[in-house]
Amino acid sequence: MRDVRMKGFAERADVEQIQDFLREQIRPLPFETVDLLSCVGRVLAEDVRAEVDVPGFARSAMDGYAVRGEDTFGASGYDPIVLSVQGEALPGKPFAGQIERGSAIRVMTGAPIPAGADAVVMAEVCEERDGKVAISEAVAPQKNIGAIGEDIRVDDLVLRAGRRLRPQDAGLLASIGVSAARCVRRPRIQLVITGDELLPAGSVPEGPRIVDSNSVVLRSLVARDGGELLPFEILPDRPETIREALRGAGADLIIVTGGSSVGTEDHAPRLVAELGSLDFHGISMRPSSPTGVGRIDGRPVFLLPGNPVSCLCAYEFFAGPSLRALGGRSREWPHRRVQRPLARKISSAVGRTDYVRVALERGKVIPIATSGASILSSTVRADGCVIVPRELEGMAEGADVEVLLYDDEIPEEVTP
Amino acid sequence: MRDVRMKGFAERADVEQIQDFLREQIRPLPFETVDLLSCVGRVLAEDVRAEVDVPGFARSAMDGYAVRGEDTFGASGYDPIVLSVQGEALPGKPFAGQIERGSAIRVMTGAPIPAGADAVVMAEVCEERDGKVAISEAVAPQKNIGAIGEDIRVDDLVLRAGRRLRPQDAGLLASIGVSAARCVRRPRIQLVITGDELLPAGSVPEGPRIVDSNSVVLRSLVARDGGELLPFEILPDRPETIREALRGAGADLIIVTGGSSVGTEDHAPRLVAELGSLDFHGISMRPSSPTGVGRIDGRPVFLLPGNPVSCLCAYEFFAGPSLRALGGRSREWPHRRVQRPLARKISSAVGRTDYVRVALERGKVIPIATSGASILSSTVRADGCVIVPRELEGMAEGADVEVLLYDDEIPEEVTP
Repeated sequence: MRDVRMKGFAERADVEQIQDFLREQIRPLPFETVDLLSCVGRVLAEDVRAEVDVPGFARSAMDGYAVRGEDTFGASGYDPIVLSVQGEALPGKPFAGQIERGSAIRVMTGAPIPAGADAVVMAEVCEERDGKVAISEAVAPQKNIGAIGEDIRVDDLVLRAGRRLRPQDAGLLASIGVSAARCVRRPRIQLVITGDELLPAGSVPEGPRIVDSNSVVLRSLVARDGGELLPFEILPDRPETIREALRGAGADLIIVTGGSSVGTEDHAPRLVAELGSLDFHGISMRPSSPTGVGRIDGRPVFLLPGNPVSCLCAYEFFAGPSLRALGGRSREWPHRRVQRPLARKISSAVGRTDYVRVALERGKVIPIATSGASILSSTVRADGCVIVPRELEGMAEGADVEVLLYDDEIPEEVTP
Repeated sequence: MRDVRMKGFAERADVEQIQDFLREQIRPLPFETVDLLSCVGRVLAEDVRAEVDVPGFARSAMDGYAVRGEDTFGASGYDPIVLSVQGEALPGKPFAGQIERGSAIRVMTGAPIPAGADAVVMAEVCEERDGKVAISEAVAPQKNIGAIGEDIRVDDLVLRAGRRLRPQDAGLLASIGVSAARCVRRPRIQLVITGDELLPAGSVPEGPRIVDSNSVVLRSLVARDGGELLPFEILPDRPETIREALRGAGADLIIVTGGSSVGTEDHAPRLVAELGSLDFHGISMRPSSPTGVGRIDGRPVFLLPGNPVSCLCAYEFFAGPSLRALGGRSREWPHRRVQRPLARKISSAVGRTDYVRVALERGKVIPIATSGASILSSTVRADGCVIVPRELEGMAEGADVEVLLYDDEIPEEVTP
């Protein structure tokens, strides 16, 4: 490996080349057993089949009276049929006996249907008084009864492996008596934050020292993408300390920020090459060109630039999709997207991929002019980003472009 | 208040009527102070202004050499200018002295610019040897220097009240030395789960007893909407126990499931009316018509039907938006939306709002035919829902309809 320090990159890889490499390298992690109450948002590692019927008994779909349907035939508002109320069935409290001819049993929604009854008359067409109920509407057999297994049958394939569990999926698992599910394990992420100039988040910047903001941003992107952050500290720019952290005991993926470029203090690229392989260093993109991608002991390692916009951008292009893939999720960017016309042209260069921060105003996409990758406030002012692919030298004013939104809400469509 | 038990609803309110009522009743909660590392996703209660400049010092935007720009004028690849290397400045480790005429100081990205230097030559056009550096490209003053305050200036309004904080916003707060932010307090939710037939989630259904799935679904919807669930237990259908729970000590919003309709065991509506006001009971919608909305001690109370689909639907229409509004978020449903043509017509009725579960297949919207509100598996098979508003009697085959997706990914667009 050529030492790039103070020399620059001899050649730069394309974004797609690295994405293809990562797609080949990274497979979902093995399963872990996840409690029912924590499984929403997790990805199923195995198919789930029902071991019970839901409901497991015939139940009333209404508040009303369980009857033998034929006993109500001919009932009407003018000529109600009167049955004697033989008893009551409540949810969880069945009626013990058998229904008699000419009788009704008061039932609530969800109550087991008493033996011998075959229909339920809804309460709204009944009037009960002194142990009798007057029914003003006939009911056909099977009416208002939920049959055994009408929701789920024993052995039904209820959820497939690979499914990201939704709230209602967890409800369904509960209803079939499942207490835990086998889900793809959450990826564990080791952050290696380097820089003699960095103060921990929460400090006040002082003199030549700045506050580490990258770990604050990465922490929540990792959470968004389903990863679990291992404890980390800010490390000084000393090779021996960084080397130790790069071993990443217990991590599935390592993210280094700072010290990834071609400066004299940029130790990480050399260390990754020494401990494993530095597969790419220097990428044809803007910002984030000094990004590196490598492997140590089979774990992917991402060298993200220290500039905050570059760090965010390189995470979204490379680390984020890999993290999601480890956790069994889709590699696709999780942002909501809208199509809108460009208010001003975007200039790029053929062969380079650009990540352009944009604002949405009056239905148009406005590129945010900034002086560089160090301007974190540009990503705060922006509503989202537009990606200019490698094969384009830019995008023309008026062209319909896809905006990846930073927020789940489309700013112009929010009603206050 | 008329006792509706075993009688049915005399009249039903419109969905919009209740939404308007809730919009008037519910205002964001007061602020609480939230640690920087937990603030992403939270809603700012106050504007934030910067108390420092970022950067607080002029810094190098490149790895290279800090120079007096005029000392490089005339440099080219054929005729490099050679300066003596006077020292080094690293991030967090400034060069102590003043730059001399005809000298250069090695600097890394982010390092403070030495006094007297006014530009940085990038490393790629420099070659250092034996204490000298040959520079093959002239650099204009101010080039490659990040000025004081170029990202943020003292007193800039960096984030506005009402903003839901993004990862990069937290990064920005860190960079201006903020350690905590005043955010709208998270709403605390008391679930009141009633039903003698219910077994706790994680149990196996047995005989006439079913497993409580509603609290499992609600738990994760409340989390999605930024609420904090207070501890709860499954309660028997006994008025005195439910009355106690409805006092909801410490809660901002109360959600009751089960016992909300017109059965003999449906105590909650009467109790809400007794302890506060039951403002609505019975809604012109399908499913979820037995939903109730009231207030106890100024807290909103939602009576959700026990049928799992009704419970989910009534949560989304009424409880969810209220919870989000309490937390300072938008009332809008948080689902992603797509427009697609209907494969088959949807029947409804003028005056009633319908929540129709649908699947997306080959670019079309397929309504899922089900026998009722108790079929939780229908919401699992569905990809989303379509809402048929009150003024329509249905939607025609081929009509373009908006689908609210249950998942953040559009099923047909996912590449495996």
